[in-house]
Amino acid sequence: MGMVGGGPGAFIGAIHRHAAALDGEIELVCGAFSADPTSSQSFGESLHLDSDRCYPNYATMFAEEAKRPASERMQFVTIVTPNYLHFDAARLAFEHGFHVFCEKPATMSTREALELAQAKEASDCHYALAHTYTGYPMIQEARQLVAAGGLGRIVKVVVEYTQGWLASSEDQSTKQASWRLDPLKAGVSCCMADIGVHAANLAEYVSGTTITELCSDVGTVVPDRQLDDDGTVLLRFKNGARGALLASQVHIGDENNLRLRVIGDYRALEWSQLEPNTLWIKSRNEATQMRRAGVGVVCPQAAGNMRTPAGHPEGYIEAFANLYRGFVSQIRSSSAHQKDTHNAPQLPGIEAAVRGMAFIENVIAAGQSDKKWVPNAVPTGGGVLQ
Amino acid sequence: MGMVGGGPGAFIGAIHRHAAALDGEIELVCGAFSADPTSSQSFGESLHLDSDRCYPNYATMFAEEAKRPASERMQFVTIVTPNYLHFDAARLAFEHGFHVFCEKPATMSTREALELAQAKEASDCHYALAHTYTGYPMIQEARQLVAAGGLGRIVKVVVEYTQGWLASSEDQSTKQASWRLDPLKAGVSCCMADIGVHAANLAEYVSGTTITELCSDVGTVVPDRQLDDDGTVLLRFKNGARGALLASQVHIGDENNLRLRVIGDYRALEWSQLEPNTLWIKSRNEATQMRRAGVGVVCPQAAGNMRTPAGHPEGYIEAFANLYRGFVSQIRSSSAHQKDTHNAPQLPGIEAAVRGMAFIENVIAAGQSDKKWVPNAVPTGGGVLQ
Amino acid sequence: MGMVGGGPGAFIGAIHRHAAALDGEIELVCGAFSADPTSSQSFGESLHLDSDRCYPNYATMFAEEAKRPASERMQFVTIVTPNYLHFDAARLAFEHGFHVFCEKPATMSTREALELAQAKEASDCHYALAHTYTGYPMIQEARQLVAAGGLGRIVKVVVEYTQGWLASSEDQSTKQASWRLDPLKAGVSCCMADIGVHAANLAEYVSGTTITELCSDVGTVVPDRQLDDDGTVLLRFKNGARGALLASQVHIGDENNLRLRVIGDYRALEWSQLEPNTLWIKSRNEATQMRRAGVGVVCPQAAGNMRTPAGHPEGYIEAFANLYRGFVSQIRSSSAHQKDTHNAPQLPGIEAAVRGMAFIENVIAAGQSDKKWVPNAVPTGGGVLQ
Amino acid sequence: MGMVGGGPGAFIGAIHRHAAALDGEIELVCGAFSADPTSSQSFGESLHLDSDRCYPNYATMFAEEAKRPASERMQFVTIVTPNYLHFDAARLAFEHGFHVFCEKPATMSTREALELAQAKEASDCHYALAHTYTGYPMIQEARQLVAAGGLGRIVKVVVEYTQGWLASSEDQSTKQASWRLDPLKAGVSCCMADIGVHAANLAEYVSGTTITELCSDVGTVVPDRQLDDDGTVLLRFKNGARGALLASQVHIGDENNLRLRVIGDYRALEWSQLEPNTLWIKSRNEATQMRRAGVGVVCPQAAGNMRTPAGHPEGYIEAFANLYRGFVSQIRSSSAHQKDTHNAPQLPGIEAAVRGMAFIENVIAAGQSDKKWVPNAVPTGGGVLQ
Repeated sequence: MGMVGGGPGAFIGAIHRHAAALDGEIELVCGAFSADPTSSQSFGESLHLDSDRCYPNYATMFAEEAKRPASERMQFVTIVTPNYLHFDAARLAFEHGFHVFCEKPATMSTREALELAQAKEASDCHYALAHTYTGYPMIQEARQLVAAGGLGRIVKVVVEYTQGWLASSEDQSTKQASWRLDPLKAGVSCCMADIGVHAANLAEYVSGTTITELCSDVGTVVPDRQLDDDGTVLLRFKNGARGALLASQVHIGDENNLRLRVIGDYRALEWSQLEPNTLWIKSRNEATQMRRAGVGVVCPQAAGNMRTPAGHPEGYIEAFANLYRGFVSQIRSSSAHQKDTHNAPQLPGIEAAVRGMAFIENVIAAGQSDKKWVPNAVPTGGGVLQ
Repeated sequence: MGMVGGGPGAFIGAIHRHAAALDGEIELVCGAFSADPTSSQSFGESLHLDSDRCYPNYATMFAEEAKRPASERMQFVTIVTPNYLHFDAARLAFEHGFHVFCEKPATMSTREALELAQAKEASDCHYALAHTYTGYPMIQEARQLVAAGGLGRIVKVVVEYTQGWLASSEDQSTKQASWRLDPLKAGVSCCMADIGVHAANLAEYVSGTTITELCSDVGTVVPDRQLDDDGTVLLRFKNGARGALLASQVHIGDENNLRLRVIGDYRALEWSQLEPNTLWIKSRNEATQMRRAGVGVVCPQAAGNMRTPAGHPEGYIEAFANLYRGFVSQIRSSSAHQKDTHNAPQLPGIEAAVRGMAFIENVIAAGQSDKKWVPNAVPTGGGVLQ
Repeated sequence: MGMVGGGPGAFIGAIHRHAAALDGEIELVCGAFSADPTSSQSFGESLHLDSDRCYPNYATMFAEEAKRPASERMQFVTIVTPNYLHFDAARLAFEHGFHVFCEKPATMSTREALELAQAKEASDCHYALAHTYTGYPMIQEARQLVAAGGLGRIVKVVVEYTQGWLASSEDQSTKQASWRLDPLKAGVSCCMADIGVHAANLAEYVSGTTITELCSDVGTVVPDRQLDDDGTVLLRFKNGARGALLASQVHIGDENNLRLRVIGDYRALEWSQLEPNTLWIKSRNEATQMRRAGVGVVCPQAAGNMRTPAGHPEGYIEAFANLYRGFVSQIRSSSAHQKDTHNAPQLPGIEAAVRGMAFIENVIAAGQSDKKWVPNAVPTGGGVLQ
Repeated sequence: MGMVGGGPGAFIGAIHRHAAALDGEIELVCGAFSADPTSSQSFGESLHLDSDRCYPNYATMFAEEAKRPASERMQFVTIVTPNYLHFDAARLAFEHGFHVFCEKPATMSTREALELAQAKEASDCHYALAHTYTGYPMIQEARQLVAAGGLGRIVKVVVEYTQGWLASSEDQSTKQASWRLDPLKAGVSCCMADIGVHAANLAEYVSGTTITELCSDVGTVVPDRQLDDDGTVLLRFKNGARGALLASQVHIGDENNLRLRVIGDYRALEWSQLEPNTLWIKSRNEATQMRRAGVGVVCPQAAGNMRTPAGHPEGYIEAFANLYRGFVSQIRSSSAHQKDTHNAPQLPGIEAAVRGMAFIENVIAAGQSDKKWVPNAVPTGGGVLQ
């Protein structure tokens, strides 16, 4: 694995490295960690990389790695830069024949996402988007339960992702905050692009249906910001279900309060990222069930994505590692016809990339519209997507 | 105290009787419990009332009680009928000089509520609306905290009230359900009039600001119902805060899941009716506080509304009893210049009645509008309200 | 109902009055509220009692009330004094033919309890002991579940009751604390007599088996106290189960943290008084069940002891009121062959009184013994108890 | 790093590999994974090890690795076998100059532990014992808080570790269960050696004082087992505090329910492994604090042991990885005078090994004694320990 971005002070790059390392199946062999070549070099060396594989930029990295013998080059790249570099780095990786594991949001715009989808199509490469929360075992359990009809017909989906880390104007001077609030680096949105898109993805991922219309109240709570830091969105789903999505970075004191409720006409489920090993199942006349990761019977997709079978708490890094393991499994199974032995999660891929960018743009546009309902239009990119 | 409604099988009437009895300050002395005079008679007797004070209807009750010497007549009436009788019974009570404690929603329409406000104004009577949740000690604590500036400037209010008891079409055959889903008995709304209005009231009660605009997605999830059973409302508040209100009777498996989050620019609070003795206070850099009713220092309005100082759980009936105690305190203090010794909660009164009816009508109307934002217009009724 | 004790500043007396009033079936008609006759008089009047039924002491009260016509006298007495008066007041009540509802611990010693049992036997009166926690609906659910074999064979019982209100030497100056720490008023124990006995009672009440041996570490954490404020007891039960009981008044910051775990060889249950409406049921291979009061199917003994069928929180006063309702039901059914329509809880009675006193004495004695295991000897009082 | 044990089907070996890999600072380079050389070979190859470093047994591994140039040999060994091999493998490792990271319990007996302490003393090697739970950030926070006097004087310690995985006789046929219940492989205890020793270690680790006396009720709940599966222990600490330790493997339905309460005369703390990112701090008159890993201000020892600063849940593997990181830091700082940059946790070492084995033996012996209190005698091994 090679890495683009994730240099000194970058929070998410370190998480990716931990997650990739966890299972002993992925080795970080090269990187272009920083816009500053010196910093990239020294940072790579601090990670015990070979000096000559600490590259000054990703273009050089792709070119140089591609020259190496197949058995000695990096097999895929993970892109953990600020948003504005995702598209170019991913496209270039595809051109050099490298698989791509990319941070969300996939690109800066739906247009870029569609272009990226075409670049992927033209290559023979895999692509996965870091919708980390799909990697949690109990999200897998939830998804399987819904797919098996365990909730009946889905009638309502409520998803929330509230944080407090941008609640104060003082917060925005950090490295993490400054680029996320800069339209040139983040795109049309801060809150929706950073966390709203996770929530929308999770809602669709678990419910098995898609958002077709939305009504959006998105805005900026803390003065003097160029991008949104808070938003609430009313949702309509393809299957007729209603819903709501709450995303905020100004709920002061909140951690990563991602919470999903899917309500069917037979049963309902609830899940919260703050206690990710628990899935609640409610029904009309029976006791509420608390299903726990690692206890009793969970589906193979949940059980296969746990490392501590006896009921020890697993967390965010493990969820991330499940995506990496799934990605490795994808690459191997396509290249060597190996079978996935871990019931890897269904990975968000290029379709999720396009859907996510369209959602972000649609929510921001709808927020400026006087019309209540606007379609969540998702272009199909000339046949790339169904 | 006399009671209108609350006969055999009426859930809320029994709660009112428990709550009124709890402190030994209120005696049920008469009632018109049922539309059926025989049933009213026998039910009243089962409650140990004098036979001749079990009345066939409320008109008779008011007339007869008014004839009794002042020291022997009922001092106020509590109205716990289905919605469509609230207005007439309350107005008639005022005309006979009886104070009124009434179930919500106050009337069938804003127009009726305004008329009722005038009737109250013309009398010398007190009026309280059973927004029960305002009676919880930790809601008092929350309200005082906000009023004292403990959260800073309020920027967001999220309030939810989700239930599951109407999740199935089978559920609507019960006595409770059938009238609530009947426009002739319930008015323009089921879900919003039954629980949405509680949520809106609580949001304003604690935040200290008022809802000025709304955008509403309200509808019917279970087929073949004439009134709404689910709705989500985007909110704008007078002070500039944003918000969301979720109300539903089809979240299968949910109890009375009323939950309030008020977010300021300094701190935020969370409260849930399922654990009403806890108030959470979150901030940017300090540990989250769990304030508990009866433990440590809470404000006099919270402490004064508890009966178990040492930290035993109190519940819904106690909250209800706090409203009754507050109402008695109001009546006494106006008649005899007595001082309230219990820090009785600020009671929702005739203004809350009008605001509540306007909210219900506005949400239903907004739900049918293509326009995104509609004003939460609240008529002032010729000077009755500020 | 008449009341002995419970005057100004007495916390538990007020709770008893609330609980007795809740259902409108019990009227407080007289009392001897204080050792000071003037105080008793004025306090009774503040409760709206007739002046001539505010008595200077309980002996006078029993004598005077007994002279009244049967239909106009108090029907039972509730005793809420400090411990040292329980025995004499109860015995005298029996002699005058009054039923007794008494605070725990029943007496100052096992010897007194046995004498009381004989006095009760010689009368035609009912006796109930205020083991309040048995009145919670979900304790009824738990008890029925165990009795029906729902846990399999019981192998372990862990019960805890930890409070923090005596954690500091400053705490002991309050009225509540001073008599509880005074051997002349409280007896041989503070912590075990005040809360340990509740825990022991609950363990036996739910598990359906009895404590036959114990090993006790009981002592005083805060210096200069004459009685225990903390203790841990190892338990052996008649059916072979093991167990532990933790009681403390010095767990600083704890409320009334009463928690019960009963473990069977098939399933286990957990209950906590801090969230009394929830009963957890765990098993080997199934999801953990969260049974909630008022939701779905609970047993008649649980459902019949709730007042808010739709899932609103109930609390301590309601649990207390369930005992009162059960006591009234007992009295009525014996006198008038009425049927209990509320599935009243099985009330702790005179046998629980004797068992409780024996447990307290045994724990204190065992604490001073070098021998590990001592029998939890419970004298049978000449045939009164089986 | 080399590994002894942890072959196919061994749960804890995999956890160690994940934990060691997480930070990219430790590479597994060799192993003797199984008593069966063929299995060891193929298993090592499945982990991508060089064929010639998959050894048939640990003796060979130590001998062969020691022959390699210093820069190419394993630097430390991790021992994850069943208990009966810990001692010999660790001692032999010391003799060959390899640092040792070992699963608990350290050995089969106190005598072995003392011998091991001498072997370590005679070498120049580091030793760490896998008391995983000490690696949790909030345990570090708790320990620092106590050390800084934040609770006042410690007066009570209650620690519980209850599991349900051996609740049924059917459970004991698994690989994990069979050796733990076999005295030849596990030693004198199952439950106390497997989890009781963790609880005892944690109690001492956080409270900063040591267990000096104990009274033990330890036994076998499920018939036909040779070793204990349940036990409760009364504790006395050096500083005068009292305590209790509950350990069980037959609390059916329990996961790894490790819970610690430390009560001081000023404040108290609570922590539960099921929600390891939360530390509760209770006091007499203030709101209860919920300190969360990654939110607000925690001590450097807590903050430095987290990888997700923004408040994502971390779990068991991360706690384990903190121990590995601390061990690497120890090794490096002694060899190269590097400074620990992560505020590595204070690692349980050879003293904890001896204390743990003594505790296990003392609890089992005390369980058979008629005497209530027995000293928790810990031999000092001729000066090795203070």
